[in-house]
Amino acid sequence: MTQVVSLEEYVGARRAQIDEALERYLPSPPACPAGVYEAMRYSLRAGGKRLRPILTLAAAETIADAAGTGIPARAIDLAMPAACAIEFIHTYSLIHDDLPAMDDDSLRRGQPTNHIVHGEGMAILAGDGLLTEAFALIGSEPQDPSLAPRKLRAIGTVAAAAGATGMVGGQAIDLLAVGAASSFGPESLRDMHARKTGALIRAAATSGAIMAGAGDDLIHAVEEYGRQVGLAFQIVDDILDVEGEARHLGKTAGKDAKAGKPTYPSLYGLEVSKRLAADCHQRAGTALESVGLHRGRLTDIAAWVIQRHN
Amino acid sequence: MTQVVSLEEYVGARRAQIDEALERYLPSPPACPAGVYEAMRYSLRAGGKRLRPILTLAAAETIADAAGTGIPARAIDLAMPAACAIEFIHTYSLIHDDLPAMDDDSLRRGQPTNHIVHGEGMAILAGDGLLTEAFALIGSEPQDPSLAPRKLRAIGTVAAAAGATGMVGGQAIDLLAVGAASSFGPESLRDMHARKTGALIRAAATSGAIMAGAGDDLIHAVEEYGRQVGLAFQIVDDILDVEGEARHLGKTAGKDAKAGKPTYPSLYGLEVSKRLAADCHQRAGTALESVGLHRGRLTDIAAWVIQRHN
Repeated sequence: MTQVVSLEEYVGARRAQIDEALERYLPSPPACPAGVYEAMRYSLRAGGKRLRPILTLAAAETIADAAGTGIPARAIDLAMPAACAIEFIHTYSLIHDDLPAMDDDSLRRGQPTNHIVHGEGMAILAGDGLLTEAFALIGSEPQDPSLAPRKLRAIGTVAAAAGATGMVGGQAIDLLAVGAASSFGPESLRDMHARKTGALIRAAATSGAIMAGAGDDLIHAVEEYGRQVGLAFQIVDDILDVEGEARHLGKTAGKDAKAGKPTYPSLYGLEVSKRLAADCHQRAGTALESVGLHRGRLTDIAAWVIQRHN
Repeated sequence: MTQVVSLEEYVGARRAQIDEALERYLPSPPACPAGVYEAMRYSLRAGGKRLRPILTLAAAETIADAAGTGIPARAIDLAMPAACAIEFIHTYSLIHDDLPAMDDDSLRRGQPTNHIVHGEGMAILAGDGLLTEAFALIGSEPQDPSLAPRKLRAIGTVAAAAGATGMVGGQAIDLLAVGAASSFGPESLRDMHARKTGALIRAAATSGAIMAGAGDDLIHAVEEYGRQVGLAFQIVDDILDVEGEARHLGKTAGKDAKAGKPTYPSLYGLEVSKRLAADCHQRAGTALESVGLHRGRLTDIAAWVIQRHN
């Protein structure tokens, strides 16, 4: 990084850019019917940390800066469509996850969930629309024919992470696991989370490296970093579900445990869970160091994921 | 076409190839959790005409044959992933459309709908999985770096047709139109159907032309053909909904009209609706003739769409 700013300032600046781009990339009326536009926009604007798109941009910047594949500001432009596409996909997954037939949540980030405001049918369509637009976006932006191989690789990475072998598969395991906490072993729990939460976080970092023009070695290192950050994220999520206050989470603490879902603390206890998260953090750092990417923002972001309180 | 076979034989042969490829391209256990795999497979195997993927293959063959961009058998290989991706998307749209929060259908093609068999949550996930895998598939197959520009164009075409400005948008208009038949004019009806049914049929034909290596003029002609066939398909669907027997349709005849949904017959009457469908057929033929593509299978398929009884 050429400018030394705090992580808080960095995240704030990137969030503002991402929020602006999300608004710009979302299809709007009259091309997009108003009903589904409003429903998609409602959940996109409901906030959230923007962790995934920030990871995409930070990976792109770090690659450009450390590996010299280009200037960081240009890397942001190259990676922004993929970053926003991943936030579209994350947002769709929350909308569908909250539906009555899934987790049946009426509150998300302290706000009424999509189906409470827009109705169940429109919430399903808003999710379908965001998922589809994600691939339209990566395929079309930035408009430069020489980027075709990168875009295709990013589409493949994101689709594999979001699809039936990734996030959707994890949701399916989760759906069938409710009330089955007692029969859920460490391997199954890890597999479920690697798919459900880990895969998209991993793809977020990886697609940033891809769009910035990284070679295979760097891409694989960033992928391993993303894998570890994704796992740490879920462990911390489970810990916060036990320890966190409803005020911070914007949802009812202890909800997953009450629903009879397997969690890290229910399987390992709190102390071991915290050590497992710290181990992931360490391995994420090692992956970056192995290719000389440890001086960029990715290191700070891994620490942020571990230390977060919501 | 080098071999002269009847349309029935042609369609039967292509259907067999498509059914085999759909099975092969669908992610399966252990990479894909069994629950969502079974749910996706259930609806993929539930049959249907396979009109959309047949259009994709026929467009690719016709381009290769008439425009000399390659041999027709090779064009089938090039276009098969896109053909199957479009059938994945069509299948996902039926699964979500049948959900209680949407059309609430318990019967489709004479079989229990996906959520009746697999539960509502798994049906939502099966749809999400099929939609995502569609883009993974076009992006990855056939594995040949020189096809990158065609694949990206096909992804863009399919995503635009399926997304919030296309099929999802049409579904959103439809969802809000229930009971609003009286306030639904010809323009609105046409716009809804162009998005809801027409866009994906158009993209099916267009992506076949793209994958076969057609130039812009041929692609645009095939796109216009697809637009007219898509519109005709919906008009005939509405006519069959009034005239058809439940036995042929596998669903209750007159269902849309009873649901208070606007239809072509409710707006124009049966006779005018039939003439409108015939007009589309004619315009589809004109589009093909303008670029010399009228001697291939696309012409037969347009006739099949108009004359079908289910």
